[in-house]
Amino acid sequence: MAEQLRNPRGTRDYYGQEQQLRKFVRQTLETVFEQYGYEEAETPVLNYYETLAQKYAGGAEILKEVYRLSDQGERQLALRYDLTIPFARLVGANPQLSPFYRRYEIGKVFRDGPVKAGRLREFTQCDVDMVGVKSILAEAELMAMAVDLFQRLDLEVVINYNHRQLLENILKEAGIQADCYSEVILSLDKLDKIGQTAVAEELNQKGFTYPVIESIFARLNQVALDNRVEITGSEELQELQSYLKSLGIEENTLFNPALARGLDIYTGTVFEVFLKNSSITSSIASGGRYDRIIDNFLGDETDYPAVGMSFGLDVIFQALLEQGAAGQTNIDVFIIPLDTGVEALKLAQALREKQVRVLVEMKERKLKRSLDYANKNLIPYVIVLGSQEVETGSISLKNMLTGADTTLFIQELTSNPPAFLKLEGVKPLKRC
Amino acid sequence: MAEQLRNPRGTRDYYGQEQQLRKFVRQTLETVFEQYGYEEAETPVLNYYETLAQKYAGGAEILKEVYRLSDQGERQLALRYDLTIPFARLVGANPQLSPFYRRYEIGKVFRDGPVKAGRLREFTQCDVDMVGVKSILAEAELMAMAVDLFQRLDLEVVINYNHRQLLENILKEAGIQADCYSEVILSLDKLDKIGQTAVAEELNQKGFTYPVIESIFARLNQVALDNRVEITGSEELQELQSYLKSLGIEENTLFNPALARGLDIYTGTVFEVFLKNSSITSSIASGGRYDRIIDNFLGDETDYPAVGMSFGLDVIFQALLEQGAAGQTNIDVFIIPLDTGVEALKLAQALREKQVRVLVEMKERKLKRSLDYANKNLIPYVIVLGSQEVETGSISLKNMLTGADTTLFIQELTSNPPAFLKLEGVKPLKRC
Repeated sequence: MAEQLRNPRGTRDYYGQEQQLRKFVRQTLETVFEQYGYEEAETPVLNYYETLAQKYAGGAEILKEVYRLSDQGERQLALRYDLTIPFARLVGANPQLSPFYRRYEIGKVFRDGPVKAGRLREFTQCDVDMVGVKSILAEAELMAMAVDLFQRLDLEVVINYNHRQLLENILKEAGIQADCYSEVILSLDKLDKIGQTAVAEELNQKGFTYPVIESIFARLNQVALDNRVEITGSEELQELQSYLKSLGIEENTLFNPALARGLDIYTGTVFEVFLKNSSITSSIASGGRYDRIIDNFLGDETDYPAVGMSFGLDVIFQALLEQGAAGQTNIDVFIIPLDTGVEALKLAQALREKQVRVLVEMKERKLKRSLDYANKNLIPYVIVLGSQEVETGSISLKNMLTGADTTLFIQELTSNPPAFLKLEGVKPLKRC
Repeated sequence: MAEQLRNPRGTRDYYGQEQQLRKFVRQTLETVFEQYGYEEAETPVLNYYETLAQKYAGGAEILKEVYRLSDQGERQLALRYDLTIPFARLVGANPQLSPFYRRYEIGKVFRDGPVKAGRLREFTQCDVDMVGVKSILAEAELMAMAVDLFQRLDLEVVINYNHRQLLENILKEAGIQADCYSEVILSLDKLDKIGQTAVAEELNQKGFTYPVIESIFARLNQVALDNRVEITGSEELQELQSYLKSLGIEENTLFNPALARGLDIYTGTVFEVFLKNSSITSSIASGGRYDRIIDNFLGDETDYPAVGMSFGLDVIFQALLEQGAAGQTNIDVFIIPLDTGVEALKLAQALREKQVRVLVEMKERKLKRSLDYANKNLIPYVIVLGSQEVETGSISLKNMLTGADTTLFIQELTSNPPAFLKLEGVKPLKRC
């Protein structure tokens, strides 16, 4: 492909039916977020590098992947790598929000990291966060929202959850010093991926003795086997589990005492959503409580309890594709004029007034090729408008799937279009 | 404000009712674009610098305003400054699209230019473009779409239009050489802004004699006075005007023979949309035919006739604000639990199943402060859920505007919520 046509490594275009399916995902997320009382916010892609490099932002690992640039005034800028730091900044800059604020943001983020299958450098995150709420009801509602959302997307999922306090209690019992917790948790987070032996080796290389490591594993296994949060020493975990029962979503969740979530920012509940019956083994959404990040970030003494959750638009889209879903066309009717261009436009305008989505053929090509175009693009209905149709005011509405023709007066069609013409919104189509 | 809380120069946050209004604009644009048969595409913000610096892209002026950066592989990248070049690239990279493709894209673009009132460095463009259509029906439909769109937004506008051929005919008659057309047109484009005297001086400084300049003005004034496209020598302009009449939108348009549109890319019809009765004098949408840009950009001999139009989300938003419009809340009902947290969540879930947008109070604060929050955020209905309500299954739905209470059984409310609860979508609110 010619040089100037390529996209940079780690970026891609979306168009056609693929983009229709992505739009369906985005619109479903927006609808659900709003039904759960989150309002939209939009923050800039461009940030001061200083803001993203704050000690309590994402940490050194992620800073290696930040795209840096400067403006004409030699300001040191960077592209945002997540939507959490912008949320913390927004709340900090607008103190009237901090007592109780719930927002969602769907936007592009950028990470100049390794490009692997399904991992892009420019991708879309969909985040919901709330600040000002200490109650565990917040986590319970977020998990209920995730269950609701994935049911609407027709994806079977299980939400793994845990509590940082439980992990810290276990580490404390094993004699680990508090300032080593993060280091140990980072390794434990890999248990599901690389297994106990490999994690043990990693911890040993970090300087922990095998007896200590064994005692951590023993305790984790005991908690997992019993699956009883009572023995975890975390009251909040017990409270959360009772809410999950009351809300009837216990069966969609799994208490996973080894779940740590690598990031340092979490202070309480953590959860991760995984697909059932899918080749996609990475999580498709995740979240948790981060009660200290905003205060640390702002460097003040105010209390900013916060809980949030992030959904990966691209991985959800991949999951739907894997299930055989495909985007629909967004055209209801295709009008093919035969030397009746302006009359076709007038008919189209009248139908659009009734919310029908209309495409008018403007190519000068053979009728057969226009019909082929409609078929190829899954357009459900076609009207061929010749001079006879214009004179008599009577048209045929052709169903492209069945081939059936319905004869209608234009007057009738435009004053009261049949309900089947208005397929509002985009619904995914199961191909398999 | 603390250093880390600031946004870079030329960027800003949108949240609260402002963002609700922006969302209303965006959703209206999306709905209208789809009703006119455009499908969504999404292209990367990151581009190869080479692609944007192509000779037939935006030209040297705009390149000065490009944000440049590089990735870990030392690739020379840049942030896109418009959505037209990405459209040309997308069509070029996917030859199956080029015979007949209509897409819209709503996305961020970046220009590192001077920051003035209402001019940002990171802003949102909303573009519709089609490729493959030579017929002037395309321009007529685009102009009809603009009329339709601004009527739905309740903004009074007039669409100025002209044709490059008319300008070129006038310049030819005045004895200007073809390779000077662009230079002259760039100056003529300022007529509405700086007036004839200043434009004449500018042209004189560029080396054109006053008699030549006078003859250009005389011809322009004559065409404008007569307002008859027959004398313009442009058959396409006559055809366009006849379509505007047939579509009943002639009164929303104005033939403006001085309209040039600075950009070099246009090859035929050009048009610009201006607000009536507004302090905003810059155009709020514009477009035209650019039949050669894609072929030139791709460097091939294929024919890519193209027409497009761009809408400025931020300026439309400003125009609505000026009219006194404001975003609504996106909450239908606020449930305030009195020690009934989990029951409140269950009630909320049941209402959300019926598409009602519900916020549950999760702060532990006095009832009065919760009610103040609802008032301040324009939430229309409140339910206070105490233990008595849970026991009896009967609640009061309080209308926050009138103060009136409606008593309902929870069962009744959740099985068939009153229609007034479901204010689907965001509609702007007139404050004045």
